Amino acid sequence: MARERIYLFDTTLRDGQQTPGIDFSVEDKIAIAAMLDEFGLDYVEGGYPGANPTDTAFFQEKRTKRAKFVAFGMTKRAGVSTSNDPGLATLLQARSDGICYVAKSWDYHVRVALGVTNEENLESIRASVEAARDAGKEPMVDCEHFFDGFKANPDYALACARTAYDAGARWVVLCDTNGGTQPSEVREIVAKVIASGIPGANLGIHAHDDTGQAVANSLAAIEAGVRQVQGTINGIGERCGNANLITIIPTLALKPHFAGRFETGVSEEALAGISRLSRAFDELLNRAPEAQSPYVGASAFATKAGIHASAIAKEPKTYEHVPPEAVGNRRKVMVSDQGGKANFVAELKRRGIDVPRDDGRLDALISVVKEREAEGYAYEGADASFELLARSMLHTVPDFFRVTSFRCLVERRFDANGNLKTVSEAVVKVMVDGEEKMSVAEGDGPVNALDIALRKDLGKFQHEIGDLELADYKVRILNGGTEAITRVLIESHDSTGARWWTVGVSTNIIDASFQALMDSIIYKLMKNRDMAGLVAAE
Amino acid sequence: MARERIYLFDTTLRDGQQTPGIDFSVEDKIAIAAMLDEFGLDYVEGGYPGANPTDTAFFQEKRTKRAKFVAFGMTKRAGVSTSNDPGLATLLQARSDGICYVAKSWDYHVRVALGVTNEENLESIRASVEAARDAGKEPMVDCEHFFDGFKANPDYALACARTAYDAGARWVVLCDTNGGTQPSEVREIVAKVIASGIPGANLGIHAHDDTGQAVANSLAAIEAGVRQVQGTINGIGERCGNANLITIIPTLALKPHFAGRFETGVSEEALAGISRLSRAFDELLNRAPEAQSPYVGASAFATKAGIHASAIAKEPKTYEHVPPEAVGNRRKVMVSDQGGKANFVAELKRRGIDVPRDDGRLDALISVVKEREAEGYAYEGADASFELLARSMLHTVPDFFRVTSFRCLVERRFDANGNLKTVSEAVVKVMVDGEEKMSVAEGDGPVNALDIALRKDLGKFQHEIGDLELADYKVRILNGGTEAITRVLIESHDSTGARWWTVGVSTNIIDASFQALMDSIIYKLMKNRDMAGLVAAE
Repeated sequence: MARERIYLFDTTLRDGQQTPGIDFSVEDKIAIAAMLDEFGLDYVEGGYPGANPTDTAFFQEKRTKRAKFVAFGMTKRAGVSTSNDPGLATLLQARSDGICYVAKSWDYHVRVALGVTNEENLESIRASVEAARDAGKEPMVDCEHFFDGFKANPDYALACARTAYDAGARWVVLCDTNGGTQPSEVREIVAKVIASGIPGANLGIHAHDDTGQAVANSLAAIEAGVRQVQGTINGIGERCGNANLITIIPTLALKPHFAGRFETGVSEEALAGISRLSRAFDELLNRAPEAQSPYVGASAFATKAGIHASAIAKEPKTYEHVPPEAVGNRRKVMVSDQGGKANFVAELKRRGIDVPRDDGRLDALISVVKEREAEGYAYEGADASFELLARSMLHTVPDFFRVTSFRCLVERRFDANGNLKTVSEAVVKVMVDGEEKMSVAEGDGPVNALDIALRKDLGKFQHEIGDLELADYKVRILNGGTEAITRVLIESHDSTGARWWTVGVSTNIIDASFQALMDSIIYKLMKNRDMAGLVAAE
Repeated sequence: MARERIYLFDTTLRDGQQTPGIDFSVEDKIAIAAMLDEFGLDYVEGGYPGANPTDTAFFQEKRTKRAKFVAFGMTKRAGVSTSNDPGLATLLQARSDGICYVAKSWDYHVRVALGVTNEENLESIRASVEAARDAGKEPMVDCEHFFDGFKANPDYALACARTAYDAGARWVVLCDTNGGTQPSEVREIVAKVIASGIPGANLGIHAHDDTGQAVANSLAAIEAGVRQVQGTINGIGERCGNANLITIIPTLALKPHFAGRFETGVSEEALAGISRLSRAFDELLNRAPEAQSPYVGASAFATKAGIHASAIAKEPKTYEHVPPEAVGNRRKVMVSDQGGKANFVAELKRRGIDVPRDDGRLDALISVVKEREAEGYAYEGADASFELLARSMLHTVPDFFRVTSFRCLVERRFDANGNLKTVSEAVVKVMVDGEEKMSVAEGDGPVNALDIALRKDLGKFQHEIGDLELADYKVRILNGGTEAITRVLIESHDSTGARWWTVGVSTNIIDASFQALMDSIIYKLMKNRDMAGLVAAE
């Protein structure tokens, strides 16, 4: 049976720009547009040319190869002709393949926000769509506040949509601008719009996540007949965000409920890169990926539970709603005091460490892990530290080097000019091959100074850690007070793109940091020798 | 029209415990249970007594006052009687009001994971429900994998649900254990279950967020007839998390689509505290609240400069799907300084500081706060530091004492017996009344040593700070790497029962801690003189 095509419209660069805390530069936009284009999206909305210098500069060139490149803007002002509206002129001159107009479709907003008559608004929609068409661009209309407008005055909301469609808009997009519409309402209203004579093949949905249902609203609209869906990468957007395309796309492709009926422009191969796309986007925004994101999060296929873990090892399919490989993610059966023996055996196997279930060393390892987790270690978030611990108890870890002592000093005092100044310094003594190396460094704080000193001279191993970098450093105080237990988690990466996590725990934050730093360096040296499981590497 | 009651079942302490990275202590569980109970939830599931020492200890007492306190566990093993199953015995002995059994309802899992016959599984369900009932506890059954099981073998899935119901289970909970079921499927399958003879008034829904639709699936099930909904605070849980009760509760209460038909045990007043509940929970887990969370996120009612901002200023209601006050959140229009100023005046007034709107010092204070918040300070969580800053700019803060210098030293080395040992020491020089005091102390870490040294000798003020204690110390790294910006939050209290929070920010964790410690001591001295607003005390 022929499947119907769903068109994917990305508004990361336009509505996503409304996210508090996110501001794209022109370079960011160029990089993101290329990612979206390559991934196989049908439309890439780039911004609002004329509204700000970034967007104006961005639209001086076409920024996509396969995807249609879309400029966003308002319909023409009432009372002027299309040729006398400078805003419209900027839109028509932008180097885009299409124009997505935003048009009010709630009569209340037409009156209060625009201050024009209902008829003038319809005329602006008609004339603007025709102007785009005449300029050889694909016209689209975002019907703003469509669902709220429909509830207040269905005839007028429909008239706006109808006017856009009759004037030749390729897509009439129904927007849940305030984000409060429920899926059942979306389903019902979309059905009424189609019944009124606008084919679903010309309708789109634009949903916001204000009740946590932007994805559900988008899918409900597709079930009801719309064939274009708008959204953003990782669901960024104004307030609670837009519909998350990174969630919608795998659902359309992998869930039988949709996959049998619909297809998108995203190939199976591209889909297997969606976890990477999602993480690369966060990387570009310099923010930590959300571990619990559907499909692509680090925890999306992670299991901690003892009762499930042994069954997953036997028969993963019955515990996973889709295969993690299909979205470029991976299964993770976590080691933690919630898990049983099966967890451990499976985790070790994944790291190339085969231990029979009845090996006494396995029991010893499990009890050490439980003991340490009771002290505050969290091995489920620190793959590399777990692997080092397991290897040191089950096999061997070479004694690459030994830190015989270290010292950190933080001093705050008035400098010569009478300004308060804080200086951090660390001294480290390391034994490598029987030779003692002593290094000293200053840093932004004691841990930074210690990190620099520790990696300053490892003798014959020094050249091996040149590409080791710390990507993230996290501190968690496990109970109250300044004398509390402190857990430090460190994320490291190197030039191969591998990433690994290490942990340290102590009542002393410097000590805890030292443990995690040491584990990271030792893991790196093991990894260089192909001795590490590299499962953290992806 | 009488509204139907929806029962809210919280599984934060049980399924939420499966969240990667989250481990509750008994103290955490006690604190969270009290929050949930007070908020008005109907059921608080506390964990799995017998599965681990934490949960066993937690169930030694009843931990709720209003809500029913529920223990989770497996149905009895096949082949043994209920009186000969030690797991079941532990469950029955737990100090709970109800027992929620997990039972397989997918025949495949009965065979592969349990290794028993379909009939034996039904018998385990029946006998376990009866045992709970006989023990005077409210019996419930979570039908694991219900939706996937129903698709594979509807008769058997229904037989499991039916057996539980017939045996007297108050609730038969349909679980989407793998989280991949779509809302339309939930709707259809729930309707079939009800049609088979189990009343919706005895059915519950347990949804996971693997396709980003846990909230939508829960609401679809309610629309289809179930009357109990399970979920967690902030949607924590295994893999992508459970249905987020913090999103579902306001939707049921505030969206006309549901509010006209249903009611819950959460009062209007309690609902106005839901943003606080959500943030307090994250605070307890020491993690940053998600700004884009529906209803409760800091950005949930935030609008950035642009086409909507000025309209919101005119007529907020037409741009907000619910009033932010209803969920204890607030509107944030980021362009308008006006709203900001009114906020400040109100905040200051609350602390007994009256400033006219046109006072130039007010503008100076606003710009310093904005600047500092951009650097990483978070005054929302540090009332006492905010008050000190405001008073020092608007009025005066006495110059009680001055720290002229400090030094922290952390040293790790082998002691005389060849054992590695880490020692932390701090030296502080303080000027009080023109006299210099020098103090030295050792501590569990550099911050603890600094804290002790700082409070060791404040001359004539020393007797005033004898009852000052640090209750909590939190560190958050605001961006990656060991050279990252560090924010320290300190909670202090004294013998009057007052509590206050102070903040420090620096690239150097010792420096950041020093700022927060200093603010805490100065606030205490102000407070002793009745100069502080004490609003932080509550």
